[in-house]
Amino acid sequence: MLRIITQQADVKAELQRICGRTQDEQVLHKEATVREVLQAVKRQGDKAVLHYTSEFDHQTLKPEEIRVTGSELDAAYQQVSKDLLQAIRLACRQIEAFHRQRVPKSWVHFGDDEIVLGKRYTPVDRAGLYVPGGRASYPSTVLMNAIPAKVAGVPRVAMVTPPGAGKNVNPAVLVAAQEAGIDEIYRVGGAQAIAALAYGTETIPKVDVITGPGNIYVTLAKKLVYGTVGIDSLAGPSEVLIIADATANPVHVATDLLAQAEHDPMAAAILLTTDAALAKNVKVAVERQLVDHPRRIDTEKAIAHYGLIVVVESLEAAAELSNEFAPEHLELEVQDPWALINHIRHAGAIFLGSSTPEAVGDYLAGPNHTLPTSGAARYASALGVETFMKHSSIIQYSHTALEKVGSAIDILATTEGLPSHADSVRRRVQKEE
Amino acid sequence: MLRIITQQADVKAELQRICGRTQDEQVLHKEATVREVLQAVKRQGDKAVLHYTSEFDHQTLKPEEIRVTGSELDAAYQQVSKDLLQAIRLACRQIEAFHRQRVPKSWVHFGDDEIVLGKRYTPVDRAGLYVPGGRASYPSTVLMNAIPAKVAGVPRVAMVTPPGAGKNVNPAVLVAAQEAGIDEIYRVGGAQAIAALAYGTETIPKVDVITGPGNIYVTLAKKLVYGTVGIDSLAGPSEVLIIADATANPVHVATDLLAQAEHDPMAAAILLTTDAALAKNVKVAVERQLVDHPRRIDTEKAIAHYGLIVVVESLEAAAELSNEFAPEHLELEVQDPWALINHIRHAGAIFLGSSTPEAVGDYLAGPNHTLPTSGAARYASALGVETFMKHSSIIQYSHTALEKVGSAIDILATTEGLPSHADSVRRRVQKEE
Repeated sequence: MLRIITQQADVKAELQRICGRTQDEQVLHKEATVREVLQAVKRQGDKAVLHYTSEFDHQTLKPEEIRVTGSELDAAYQQVSKDLLQAIRLACRQIEAFHRQRVPKSWVHFGDDEIVLGKRYTPVDRAGLYVPGGRASYPSTVLMNAIPAKVAGVPRVAMVTPPGAGKNVNPAVLVAAQEAGIDEIYRVGGAQAIAALAYGTETIPKVDVITGPGNIYVTLAKKLVYGTVGIDSLAGPSEVLIIADATANPVHVATDLLAQAEHDPMAAAILLTTDAALAKNVKVAVERQLVDHPRRIDTEKAIAHYGLIVVVESLEAAAELSNEFAPEHLELEVQDPWALINHIRHAGAIFLGSSTPEAVGDYLAGPNHTLPTSGAARYASALGVETFMKHSSIIQYSHTALEKVGSAIDILATTEGLPSHADSVRRRVQKEE
Repeated sequence: MLRIITQQADVKAELQRICGRTQDEQVLHKEATVREVLQAVKRQGDKAVLHYTSEFDHQTLKPEEIRVTGSELDAAYQQVSKDLLQAIRLACRQIEAFHRQRVPKSWVHFGDDEIVLGKRYTPVDRAGLYVPGGRASYPSTVLMNAIPAKVAGVPRVAMVTPPGAGKNVNPAVLVAAQEAGIDEIYRVGGAQAIAALAYGTETIPKVDVITGPGNIYVTLAKKLVYGTVGIDSLAGPSEVLIIADATANPVHVATDLLAQAEHDPMAAAILLTTDAALAKNVKVAVERQLVDHPRRIDTEKAIAHYGLIVVVESLEAAAELSNEFAPEHLELEVQDPWALINHIRHAGAIFLGSSTPEAVGDYLAGPNHTLPTSGAARYASALGVETFMKHSSIIQYSHTALEKVGSAIDILATTEGLPSHADSVRRRVQKEE
């Protein structure tokens, strides 16, 4: 059921098919629905938000119920175990420590000729975090989105998440939100939540940047509001690519493939190995572990459609295939991962060696688990503090400095047919009027 | 014709109207055309590119004419003056020097407990630059897009630009492209050029990131292909906001407003001043300079629709209005610009003092002139070296390090209902099998 390919001719086509698995012919139809939701929320605010919450999430809220109350937030702490709270706090500390490294800092450079140049970094005023509901309602998602925003210095961080049965929000999510320092939480999900954050309603404030994963409706809504607000990325289903040699433990590799596949029937789990015996043993181990897997049906679907083992000639050949795929998660389960990493050009996160399963990074190593998917690692990076900051260029010329570049600006502006550009320098340099 | 507002009640609404000036009711209709072009190029490659070039740009090309030849590139040097070449080279040097500052560098941190964490920065494999044709065909656009890509270390940088009359490309643009180190140039424009860069054709290579300004069709195409490739931003018409006190020279301020307005009938030019006399004098100077302005009609349109002078109570009040507008360009024509800058939170680029007209930054100060417009400076920054780079997170745990976090990961994964995540750590720590 988990296929092994050894024919190199088939490999590239198969990897391309898996990488492009999110292309959905029905997107245009769904986009029309999302556009309607966005327009309605833009025009009618809370009223439309409540309407779609009733229609899509089957929860009838009053306007004053949109925001999660202080007593619900307090109560959440009673509903989680002490061990879970400690684990959340450990994750918080480690994620914060990593994100505090290399935070962009403002600088100015005092150059020759009385010229000052620089960049001034500032946080956005407001950020909005989307946290999915239902089975994909993860406290780790909350931490990975909120902590970079807080480290960036965003003064106001709002979270939205769809209400579950009885209008409830997962208590572990509420605890994680408080530990991460989120300022306000609204029980709204789907495209209507993205619209509320992008345009603002009576209850929900308009934000500057929206981050966080969601289903296809949420992702389409993010794409459509991009430009009105900033967004982190358009996340697709998750994926792992493992490069392994004969030193890898087949049971560990199999578990890591399943840890990806159990996320979603669209998740992808790929092994590239130089060792044919390992390939076989991993396949056997995957099938054995699937037998009594609590999420067997969905996990099996992912393995069957988007699982793949490829036996390759060399580790370098594996690295090249991996670069074409540009995986979200890349595990290097090989004897010398620090030698192999030099051949890697595109990957969201790289896990080195036999004691670094992806789960370490998913939860608490510190680096962000919000990573580019579906080949986006060719040009994009993990969510980070930068997602919630921006900079202004700084330029100051003295009169003397301006004089020196006057004629160069004059000829460039004249070439481009922009006379007032030329004038703006000429008039200052000539000291006329 | 250039309005002066002193009633504070009207100011916010007027600024909002100007900031939102790009909202176009016809976008949906144009989007349908763009989708068709994208699909056709994706399916038919060069054939569709040539078809739309004939339809939209009225130039009939053969496939072998798509790429600009070496002899055309050589000939371009004969068509530009020595002075222009020198000005282009000065701009190149200064833009490169600025962009070489604070280029992101890879790092690893060797932490306690045998944990290695870091970020590895790499350039994209291929970048594609869009350069508009016709009157907006600017050599400065070429430099501002190409130089950051080259500084980032992008191995292959392609440029596309629509063919003008006689299939020609502006020689100043061709010279700038060569000075900036662009590797290949294709005479294709519009949505078909964006499609070619996003999907690849027989002649034009698929790239990873597309940058550069364009008309509404180009911008819509960039928005639609975002996710297949990375893009820089969705640029709208240009804008300047000037904060001036009684020390400012009204003729200089007027020229700077016109230097913005002359770009485009949709450009915005706003002055906020504490000095009512300056307001009046700037208005007079603008109208005087417009009389024989070579681009009078378009410039007058911009000034009439999106020009505005506001008399404010204080410089702090001006800064707060400016923050709400989040201008692309902000000039601080005041006695102490370094005091005022502390009140500025959102602006693409800030020009300080009386000898720093925006034109200095447009051409050669060094910082990028591709800046967020229409309020996007609330969350976005100038194009830069980072636009063409991305990073991979790096994580390595030792067996001992993994043991220490085993139970925390176990409870988090179990809470999230992801058993193989928990297993992937448990099996390694227990050394079973």
